[in-house]
This record gives sequence, C-alpha cells and structure tokens, in this order.
Amino acid sequence: MTEKMRVLLHVSDNQRWSMALGNITNFLKDVGQDNADIVIVANGPAVSSYASSDHMETMELLADRGVRFKACRNTLKKLCAEGAVCITEDALPAFVEVVPAGISEIVRKQREGYVYVKP
Amino acid sequence: MTEKMRVLLHVSDNQRWSMALGNITNFLKDVGQDNADIVIVANGPAVSSYASSDHMETMELLADRGVRFKACRNTLKKLCAEGAVCITEDALPAFVEVVPAGISEIVRKQREGYVYVKP
Amino acid sequence: MTEKMRVLLHVSDNQRWSMALGNITNFLKDVGQDNADIVIVANGPAVSSYASSDHMETMELLADRGVRFKACRNTLKKLCAEGAVCITEDALPAFVEVVPAGISEIVRKQREGYVYVKP
Repeated sequence: MTEKMRVLLHVSDNQRWSMALGNITNFLKDVGQDNADIVIVANGPAVSSYASSDHMETMELLADRGVRFKACRNTLKKLCAEGAVCITEDALPAFVEVVPAGISEIVRKQREGYVYVKP
Repeated sequence: MTEKMRVLLHVSDNQRWSMALGNITNFLKDVGQDNADIVIVANGPAVSSYASSDHMETMELLADRGVRFKACRNTLKKLCAEGAVCITEDALPAFVEVVPAGISEIVRKQREGYVYVKP
Repeated sequence: MTEKMRVLLHVSDNQRWSMALGNITNFLKDVGQDNADIVIVANGPAVSSYASSDHMETMELLADRGVRFKACRNTLKKLCAEGAVCITEDALPAFVEVVPAGISEIVRKQREGYVYVKP
C-alpha cells in the first residue's frame, strides 16, 4: 500500500474558494481519491463561505469524497466582535470542524508531513 | 559538490508575475545559478501571461539560465471553456512545459524536496 | 525539552500585515511563547509598513516576545529606485533585521525546518 499524498490548502479570502475547490477536484481526478489525504484550513474572511450557499454544493461533494474542511475559531469570534458577521458553530455545516486556531492547525499539519498550498 | 537549492514558485495571478520573476532574479544573483534548481508552476489566470509579451523577455532570460516554467492544462482548458481566453498549447513559448494538473505538480515537487514560495 | 515549533511567515503586501500579526498572536497564545520560534520575512511593498506607525505597537510587542522581523534589502532599494518610497536602513526599527534577499531567507529558513505560511 502506498502512502497517501498529504495536502494542506490554506484559504484566507472568499474569492480564493473557487480556485481552492477547483484545485482539489483536479487533484483527486489526477491522483485518485484513494491516494489523497486533503485538509483545507480556512481562516480570515474566508470562513464566512462556510455559512454561504456559494460553494456549498462543491464543498459537500468533496467532503463526501474524504476532504476535511476546518474553520478557525479565533476568526469566527473576531468577525463577530468586529460586527462583520456572527456565525455560530452550530450554524456551520456538519462536515466543517472548528479548530481553536487556524494558524496552529496549519503549522501542525505541515509538521505531520502535509505539503502546503495557498491557492 | 553541494546539492542545489530546490525552489518551487507558485503563481496564480497575473499581477504576481513581476514579484515572482524579481524574486528568482534576486535568488540567482544571491546564491549563484549553479546552486539553484527553480521551478515555476502557473495555474489560474496567471497562465495567460505565457501568451503575452508583458514579461516574456525576463521569462526567456530566466529560462536560458535554467529556470523551468510550467503551465496547468486544466487551467488552459477552463479559461477557454469559460470564454476568457483560448490559448493552444502550440501557442505557448517553447520553454513552457504543460503539465496535466498544476496542483499535482505543486504537490509532487514539494514531496521531491522543493521548498514552496507563493510570491 | 521539546523542540520549538519553527514557523516562517511571508508577507508581501501591506494589507496582509493585520492577518499575519493576528496569526502570530493567536499562535503564541495557543502553543505558548516558549514553544514557538517565529520569523517573518517581508518583501515587496509590505516592507514599507516597517516605516509606518500602522502596526508598530503590535510589531514591537511581538518582537519583545521573541518574534524576529526581517526586511528584504533588494526591495528597499527597488522601492526607492522606482520613486515609490525611500526607506533608509537606519530609519527601520531596531527589531528589524535587513537581509540581502528576502527570497533567499525564505528558502533557507524552510531548509532549516521552518514551516511556511503565507497569511
């Protein structure tokens, strides 16, 4: 059995979701779903797309194919405190895991051997 | 003989080419051409610069110095399908290698020991 | 004694400083100052924030906590040559270290085991 290719995508801005999700779709098609271990960490304004319908269909499809979506709790709190948008964790899709700090997740995953891509 | 320093630059947007090409020029000057192994992977809108004269002179100069330029085939197809711009592979400069999926190339190169930079 | 977590943040644009400094603050809070070894390399327009008051208070606070701030000399020269802004190295805060080429520092630090993040 070959080791899966571990990939970490970092998305900070809403306008980068389209690129990120397209990258993942292409990657899965190219290397095969069984050979890929993909994590997306969203921090900054990009987390608000988790509460929007814009890319939900594609996200759900990719989540079903094993892609793990994460959201930064610090960001959720900050966006609400700043009056930008208040997204409760309950309001996020079931496939999104909230992590305490997106930056720490980004660092830890790389230390576990995930290669970093900023779409 | 020292191992060459492997560097992978990822360019997604046309306005980042200037930064990316400047980075490479500075890097080659700093560490010496013989000590550098540089690959650029362009995906997203940035691939259209391969069919433009804007940075061609600098690209050609760097290609002559051993820098490898790659373009994502998925992107070329997508830009054409969306009616943005149709660039045939034949129309690309000879120094540009088309790869099936830019994201896969970015992942593979990192697994080969190239360090990632997003200018 | 556990090895410190080595993190390299790359900042090219002034509007990304807020995100970068927030990331670092969150990271230090999450993993603890004694477990983090953080370097920021600024190149491109972002270096001009070192000569601005916009983020100075936060930068000073983080520098006091061990975060190392670096500026690309090539960029400083380029910004002045282009007539954008001339920042002499003497005018930079004492906590900023000027490196000959930001790109080389970014490559070297990754080769030393720092994980790369582009906020």
